[in-house]
Parts: sequence; structure tokens; C-alpha cells
Amino acid sequence: MKNVTQQLVRHFTTLNNLNNKEIYRLIEKALQYKNGKNCNKLSERYAINCFFEDSTRTHKSFEMAERKLGMQVMDFQPATSSIQKGESLYDTVMTLQSIGVNLIVIRHNQEDFYKELIGSPNLSSSIINAGDGTNQHPSQSLLDLMTIYEEFGAFKNLKIAVAGDLSHSRVAKSNVQILNRLGAEIYYTGPKEWMESSFENYGTYENMDELVGKVDVMMLLRVQHERHNGEKNGFSKKEYLKQYGLTFEREQMMKEKSIIMHPAPVNRGVEIASELVESRRSRIFTQMENGVYARMAIIDSILN
Amino acid sequence: MKNVTQQLVRHFTTLNNLNNKEIYRLIEKALQYKNGKNCNKLSERYAINCFFEDSTRTHKSFEMAERKLGMQVMDFQPATSSIQKGESLYDTVMTLQSIGVNLIVIRHNQEDFYKELIGSPNLSSSIINAGDGTNQHPSQSLLDLMTIYEEFGAFKNLKIAVAGDLSHSRVAKSNVQILNRLGAEIYYTGPKEWMESSFENYGTYENMDELVGKVDVMMLLRVQHERHNGEKNGFSKKEYLKQYGLTFEREQMMKEKSIIMHPAPVNRGVEIASELVESRRSRIFTQMENGVYARMAIIDSILN
Amino acid sequence: MKNVTQQLVRHFTTLNNLNNKEIYRLIEKALQYKNGKNCNKLSERYAINCFFEDSTRTHKSFEMAERKLGMQVMDFQPATSSIQKGESLYDTVMTLQSIGVNLIVIRHNQEDFYKELIGSPNLSSSIINAGDGTNQHPSQSLLDLMTIYEEFGAFKNLKIAVAGDLSHSRVAKSNVQILNRLGAEIYYTGPKEWMESSFENYGTYENMDELVGKVDVMMLLRVQHERHNGEKNGFSKKEYLKQYGLTFEREQMMKEKSIIMHPAPVNRGVEIASELVESRRSRIFTQMENGVYARMAIIDSILN
Repeated sequence: MKNVTQQLVRHFTTLNNLNNKEIYRLIEKALQYKNGKNCNKLSERYAINCFFEDSTRTHKSFEMAERKLGMQVMDFQPATSSIQKGESLYDTVMTLQSIGVNLIVIRHNQEDFYKELIGSPNLSSSIINAGDGTNQHPSQSLLDLMTIYEEFGAFKNLKIAVAGDLSHSRVAKSNVQILNRLGAEIYYTGPKEWMESSFENYGTYENMDELVGKVDVMMLLRVQHERHNGEKNGFSKKEYLKQYGLTFEREQMMKEKSIIMHPAPVNRGVEIASELVESRRSRIFTQMENGVYARMAIIDSILN
Repeated sequence: MKNVTQQLVRHFTTLNNLNNKEIYRLIEKALQYKNGKNCNKLSERYAINCFFEDSTRTHKSFEMAERKLGMQVMDFQPATSSIQKGESLYDTVMTLQSIGVNLIVIRHNQEDFYKELIGSPNLSSSIINAGDGTNQHPSQSLLDLMTIYEEFGAFKNLKIAVAGDLSHSRVAKSNVQILNRLGAEIYYTGPKEWMESSFENYGTYENMDELVGKVDVMMLLRVQHERHNGEKNGFSKKEYLKQYGLTFEREQMMKEKSIIMHPAPVNRGVEIASELVESRRSRIFTQMENGVYARMAIIDSILN
Repeated sequence: MKNVTQQLVRHFTTLNNLNNKEIYRLIEKALQYKNGKNCNKLSERYAINCFFEDSTRTHKSFEMAERKLGMQVMDFQPATSSIQKGESLYDTVMTLQSIGVNLIVIRHNQEDFYKELIGSPNLSSSIINAGDGTNQHPSQSLLDLMTIYEEFGAFKNLKIAVAGDLSHSRVAKSNVQILNRLGAEIYYTGPKEWMESSFENYGTYENMDELVGKVDVMMLLRVQHERHNGEKNGFSKKEYLKQYGLTFEREQMMKEKSIIMHPAPVNRGVEIASELVESRRSRIFTQMENGVYARMAIIDSILN
């Protein structure tokens, strides 16, 4: 338990340093919240959500989690803050701490932004990494794990496909490593030029058509148009769906109990045929629902 | 009562389909709230306000109504949401529902935006239409009705003038139809080129100078400069006031108990002389006050 | 006490009209809150924060103060409000009042913006001036006074240096006048071309190097790059620090118990060497912490 204490005692910035036991514990706690367990009310505690990148799901999910825990929730808007006068993230965080905020949730495009913060001896409030660029998105990882675990009760021997733009998604890399050490078998698919050799340590590449019939979980990644700026990826949306996406025809080939996951926002008709988004196999909206409970578990772990 | 059940059971998108009884019921409920009636507290319910168009009154009035009902209130900002990554309104709404929001209040410039939403079998949260472009603005209509009813105790035989840009205001058209079926006599005034023949079914056109002395209610409409983009309407502000607006001189001709209404924001000195905005006849700020109670009645009706 | 009644009974717009007794009273109340005194809960009262200029500290500090007092807190965003349709500040305030807001906190770039508001016979809600351009910032002044008083227990005979761009800071001028009448000895330093002869009534100019060793309080002002638009002030950042700022070398010359203050956001490396911001003498983050309690005292005084 010492590791939990070390990693979770104050901040939540990555899943990579948590051991399996610690991860299972967070998942169990999240499932208990989902099943109606009363939560330790944090009614005299103040949270602020600082989103430096556009977000609906993660932003509002954290807010909901904080509210369900009884916290006072504040919102920080970079565009109308002193960030505009050149104030640094560090000084902003120290300011929020000084006025009495206990929990600071941050999404920022700078990789590892949190390292400077949690390295400061003057930081006494808690930091949650709600996404550092394309690097980590540990609360998303946890809700993905929770959704798989809720469905199958275990990770061992599960066959999990990760489909799409892995080269731009260290989030996916991090997920893949954790799923691998939890015992899952990992497969990749998508445009070959988007793969990296480093992935081969954790799984194997196959074509979508070979893969779709044998996996338990089809995790689709979002084609991040906004991070492909100026790049020629050479696919029209329609072509992408046809070659690499989950079409209705491919979905028919999936095993009886297989599920579809996607972190959203979904590009309907690109990664996945639009009608599949709300189909019986889809856990896309379940993931969002679970996200609230996963974040409650995270917050409860670091504040209590 | 079955109609109430049908229309109000879950969503509030238009007044047009409510029968007279249902409308009176909402008005009575709103007046009870105004008179201090305790409300059914909705303390474990979550509301989110999604304004895709600029608003002060409607936005903050809904927020106040939700807070007075004891709800948890969240705010959705399109400019920093995944709408920026291309996520559709439908997927945004399903996301908010998934994270546990019970009530989603939406203002959107797209006419009938709510039809796709409430047509979905997967929608379980409640939708309120807080304005769909120039089409409907049913909570505004209700507060207008409430304000007239509060003043005169009835609609029958009331003489009501609607003054201004009716051609750009289906809101006004909808109001006029409802007032007509509730028994009021409707008159129009304003630039003739802004009138449409379809209005003749519900009332008659007269010059402002003929009209001002005989009506009980003078409902001024806002000249919507932002929707007249690129149009030549051919009036300077000063000219508009002089020819079609409510000047101080015209106000002197009004009947003893007549009142002035305006949905605001007011263009002071265009539709109305500035000093009349806060004069004894003006119910402009009363309308805003009533808006909170009208919205409490609406929310209470669909959530309880 | 009659003055308190007059000045604080409803609005808080300037410290200049408060007498010394009234100022001490606010400071004492703020210190009591800091020391854990229970506050009169204002749980059925609604506050709205209207920031027309970028802010982190003042905005979030007011929000925290309101929340700690148990108020319902709303946020007003000019960029998505009817301000965009040309609605005036006056009509916006009357709207917020009409929907039931009790306290309206406003920062606006227009000097004396509040005068029109509090001059209206129709205003019944309370206004707090959270900064009117470069003119006044009375809650900042109060937290500065509170921080000095907390440190030294008195103002009499304290030597206080104000360093930097006084010509652009009527806030500083106002502080200097109040500190002067509370018995402090005032000194100025900084670029001579930024001084004004009017200051000589309240204190004397000296070079930073002469001054630093003899003052009890070194109040640094922010070089307001955003208000120096297009001006040639002729200093690089490095040069400014070297000539006029608080370097590490100068800090060594300060008296044992002297403190450093700054309203923030700090330009690290311009007004002050970066490493001094969190040094033992710095009260910069204490000022922020005190700001919450000072604002609680202000709000409590005008609403109770």
C-alpha cells in the first residue's frame, strides 16, 4: 500500500507509476460509486478546473465528479485570466492555492506541465493531470480500464484491438502498456505509416479485417484532425472508414460479446459508421458515464 | 390534463402545442412562486445551460430559476468545448446526459434544433428550448403572458399592440397567435414593409399614432440590428423612433392603465425614448423578474 | 459610525471616503475571518461577478469570498452576453438586479463606471468596484493595508516604499494617500520620468539603492506592459530590474524584519528577481490569501 500512499497521497498525474493493486483499487472504488455507494462528502473543499484546451467530456465530467463529492466547484478561464498578461501556469497555480483552492484540475497542451508544479516545495494543494497534450490522460485511461473490467470482470487473456493514429497518441501507448501488464493481449490496426516499432513490445499489428472477428474489445482512436495540421495523411474521411474504420459490415463479424470503445469526440463516419455509435455493442456513452465515477475515485483517493 | 402530460412530461420546446388550460396552469404556478410559494426542491438534480448565442437575460434567468429550485447548475461554453473539434449538438447533448445531467437548456441559432434531440430514443434527460434562432422563444412568451395576466387578470378583450420588426420575429408571430386564442385583440404597427399578410389572420395594422391611445399593452419589439446584416432598412435610429417608436409625446396619449413591454435588450432611443424604459408604465424590468418565476414553473413542470 | 453607514451601507466603491476608524474596522473584521471566526452565512443571497478586464486573483478571490460566506455565486461573461448586442452596463446591471441578484461585483476599464449606477434611484442591489481601470482598486488597497497591519500591528512611523510606475497607477496614489493619513512615512522610487509632482505631498523620492536599507515595506508595482502600449519607456526588462527592481543584492540590504509586497501578477525578473517571489520576506502570496478575508469583510459589511 505504500506505493498508493506515495503516488496518490496528493496528486494524480499518471497511471504509469501505479502498480496493479493500486489500479484495481481505483477501479473497485469507482465501481462502488457507480453502484450507489455513499461518498465521503468533501463539502468544505474547493476545486477549480483549469482547461487550457477545448474539452466537453473531461471538463464537465470532472465538474460532475467534484459536485457529486459535495465540493465547491470553481471554473478558471484562461482567456479572461491574468494568463493574458503573461502570468505563468506556476504563478497561476500558486495564486489559486493562496486563495484557498484545495484541488486544481489542469488540462494543458504542454507535455509534463505538472512536473514543475509538484516539484515545488511550496505546493500544498492537489494537482490532477486532466491531459498533458498528446502525452498522458490518466483519468481517461482509468475510465477505459474501468469500462473493460466492468464488462469482463478481468483483463487476463482479453484480446484488445487499438485502432487508429497511435503515433500521435501517447495516451494510447500508455493504455497499451498498462493493459499489457494487466494481462491483456494487445493488437494494433490502422494505417501502417502511423505505427511505431516501439509498439511491438506490447502487441502485434494486423489488418482490421483479420482482427475484427477475434477481439473482445475494439478500442477506436479519434483521428485528431487538429493535431494533423498541415500534414498530408492522404485519406479522405470516406476512404479512412472503408480501409481502417469500423463499418457496419465489419461490426457484423465481431464476436457475440465483443464491445466497441472510443474516447470521443467521435468523428462519425471516419473511425466508425455513424449508426454504430449508439448500437448495442457500443460502450462509448458508458465510458462517459464511468468517467464521472472514475474521477470521483481519483479525487477521493487524493483528498481523503 | 393528458396534453400537459404529453407536452410537458419531459421537454419544453414550444408553447404552440399547449392548450389554454395548460398555459394558464403554468402562469398560475409562476405567480405562486412570485408570491413566495415554497418550491419542490430539486437538490440532487443537475442542470446545464448551453448558450450558442449571446444572452444576458435568458441565460442568467434560467440559471437563477435553477438555483432557486435548489438544482446544481453547470455552464457549457461552446467556445471552449469539443464543439470546436467538430462535435455535433446531438453528440454534445448525449455526452452531457451520460455524465449525469438531468436538464439541458439550449439556445441555438438553428431553427428547430431540438427536433433531432427529442426524436432520439436514447434521450432521457430533459430539453428546454431557450430560443431557436428567430423561430421560437417559448419561455419568453410565457413570461410575457404572465406579465400581462398579472397586470390585468385576464386576456379577454385586452387590446394589445405589437410594434416593430415582425417579419424577422417568429417569436412575435407565435406570441400573437397565442394571445389571439386567449381572447386578446391584436394590433400591429411599425414599418409597413416589415409586415406580412399572414398576420392579418390575427389582427389589424394601424399607425402608431392612431394605435397608441387605445391599447392596454404596447409590446415593443427590438430592432435586431444583428439580424439585419447587409440589409438596407432605410431608417436612421432617430427616424425610426420618430416614425414608429414610442416617444415621450406618444406615451402621453396612452390610457391611464396601459403598460409598456419590451423583451430587451432595449435599443434606447430607437424603439422607445430612453427615459420611458424606467417610467411608471414600463413593465420591462418586471418582465425580467417574472422570467425567473416563469422558468421555475417550466422546470418544475417537466422535472417533477 | 454614521460614515460607515453612509459609505458601506450598500456599495463599496472607494476607500478614499472612509475615515480611519472605518478602515480599521474592516481590517479587524478581515483578520477575524482569517483567524477562523464564523461568518454570518448569506445563503439565500446571490452574487454575480462581472469582469470586463482579464483577472485571475481579484475574480477568483471575490468568488471564494462569496462562497465562504455561503452565497450563491454566478458568473457574468461579457463576451457571450447581450453587451455584444450593444446593451449598456447600466441596463445589464438593472437586468441582473431584476432577476434577483443581490450583489454585483464589477471590474471595468471605464474610470468611475459605478457613479452612474449608484446614482440611479432604481438601483437596489449592491455594487462593489473590483477595479475601475487605472483609477481605484479598493479591495486591493484593503488587502494591502490588512497585510501590513497584520505584520506590524500599526501604520504609525512605518517606512513604506512604493516602487515603479506610479504615473499609470492611481491605485498606488490612492494607497499612498491612505497610508499617509494612517501615519506611515511614504517613499517613492523608480524611473523619475514616471513620477508626478503631486506625489510630493505624501512622500519623497529616493533611489532604490538608498531606500532599500531603511524601509519596513517594499511595495513593488507591476510594470503594466498592457497600459504602456506604443509608449517608448526605454527600458529592457533586464535593465529595469538592474536599475529600479528588487534584485537579490538589494534584498540583502533590507532590514531584518522588512517585507516585500506586490499586487501581482508579478513580472518575474522585471520588478523583482524571480527567486525573491517566494522568499521569506515576500508577502506576495499572503496578500492573495488575505484578499479573500478582506473581501469577506467588505461583502459582510454591505450586505448585513
